[in-house]
Amino acid sequence: MSAGNSELQNQLKKAAATKAADYVKDGMIIGLGSGSTVRMLVDELGRRVQEENLQFTGVSTSISTAEQARSLGIKIVDLDAVNAIDLTIDGADQVDRNFNGIKGGGGNLLWEKIVAVNSKKLIWVVDESKVVNQIGAFPLAVDVEPFGSGHILKQFSNAGFNPVVRIGNDGQLFKTDSNNIILDLHLHKIDDPGKLAETLTNIVGVIEHGLFLGMVNEVVVGKQAGPEILVNSKKR
Amino acid sequence: MSAGNSELQNQLKKAAATKAADYVKDGMIIGLGSGSTVRMLVDELGRRVQEENLQFTGVSTSISTAEQARSLGIKIVDLDAVNAIDLTIDGADQVDRNFNGIKGGGGNLLWEKIVAVNSKKLIWVVDESKVVNQIGAFPLAVDVEPFGSGHILKQFSNAGFNPVVRIGNDGQLFKTDSNNIILDLHLHKIDDPGKLAETLTNIVGVIEHGLFLGMVNEVVVGKQAGPEILVNSKKR
Repeated sequence: MSAGNSELQNQLKKAAATKAADYVKDGMIIGLGSGSTVRMLVDELGRRVQEENLQFTGVSTSISTAEQARSLGIKIVDLDAVNAIDLTIDGADQVDRNFNGIKGGGGNLLWEKIVAVNSKKLIWVVDESKVVNQIGAFPLAVDVEPFGSGHILKQFSNAGFNPVVRIGNDGQLFKTDSNNIILDLHLHKIDDPGKLAETLTNIVGVIEHGLFLGMVNEVVVGKQAGPEILVNSKKR
Repeated sequence: MSAGNSELQNQLKKAAATKAADYVKDGMIIGLGSGSTVRMLVDELGRRVQEENLQFTGVSTSISTAEQARSLGIKIVDLDAVNAIDLTIDGADQVDRNFNGIKGGGGNLLWEKIVAVNSKKLIWVVDESKVVNQIGAFPLAVDVEPFGSGHILKQFSNAGFNPVVRIGNDGQLFKTDSNNIILDLHLHKIDDPGKLAETLTNIVGVIEHGLFLGMVNEVVVGKQAGPEILVNSKKR
């Protein structure tokens, strides 16, 4: 799912990620998301740890982010080792003006959502191409228990969800950090995200889905004129 | 969770399991549940395969049942290898007169529920002590993603659900066939099973719960006067 980002997109993401790193203060417990934008954020946080003696504790939403952070000298602890997370900074694949988002392009949506619900504040960092009027053009990842998953694939097909079993970069069946599979739903547009979320949640064998509805507090949007911050007034 | 069954209970279960084995006919695809009663059922089916040349294909709800069945010469295939299951026979920990049941004492509730929803017909085999006016005296198993599960434990405690992390017979943390953990809720009684099911399903990190509400078609109850069959008229 790593889209072929343009150089411009990468610059916008990097500026937004650097901006988001400013939210991290000494002594905080910070949830660190996953994906290419978070990778830039973690690089910046690692730099500040090393050069500015920034001191914070990280909780990671994926094994790969934990590995990157530790390699840069960032202290990472297990989610169960903290009472609550002060702030989580993550990426998103799409977000609309009602702060309904799609996540899961990197396949870490389950851990990302678990970290999100245990965070006092959630911030997403995106480039401006991710902010849309209607979500759904980006495939919706669904985290599925492998046992019997062929029947869920069939059910999604029958429902017109155009599911595709995710294959990893190695050409093998993609497995999440919890050893589940991902079915990507090619929906093109999602008219009623809340109803779809309810439908998916109630399917036996569906573990989690990539709809993150109204959960985010602020979105840092990388734009050519500089990062813009969208504030979800319903979450303040 | 293997309760110390009395010899009488075992006799009643065995009679009911033998009765339930009669439902299995040549050529059928049969879902085989888990637990001590199903173990008796599989023994009986294995005997009929060997002595009476009964021919059917089994789909198992647990690794242990699959191993037992195969050792007795029963053909076991993966759930994804069949279009649908004709009939699933499973046990239950408690069932009320509205055919709302609790399952999960053996820890296999996730696969059991996945097999159940892919079955044309579902039968439970129980001894008469399992048929109750109100479910909940038996602890309710909840299948939980290990990542961040300490926070779900806390949430359940705060809700008054009296959760206990399940420990296996080996004294170690119990892990399901999908490598999840089980939290047993000591609720004593469940006043509104549907509402509780909805609450649990909507918690991020809860993968499945042991409430099987109105799903079963028939319950074969082992009684001293002989097995009695309870028919769920809403499912016919």
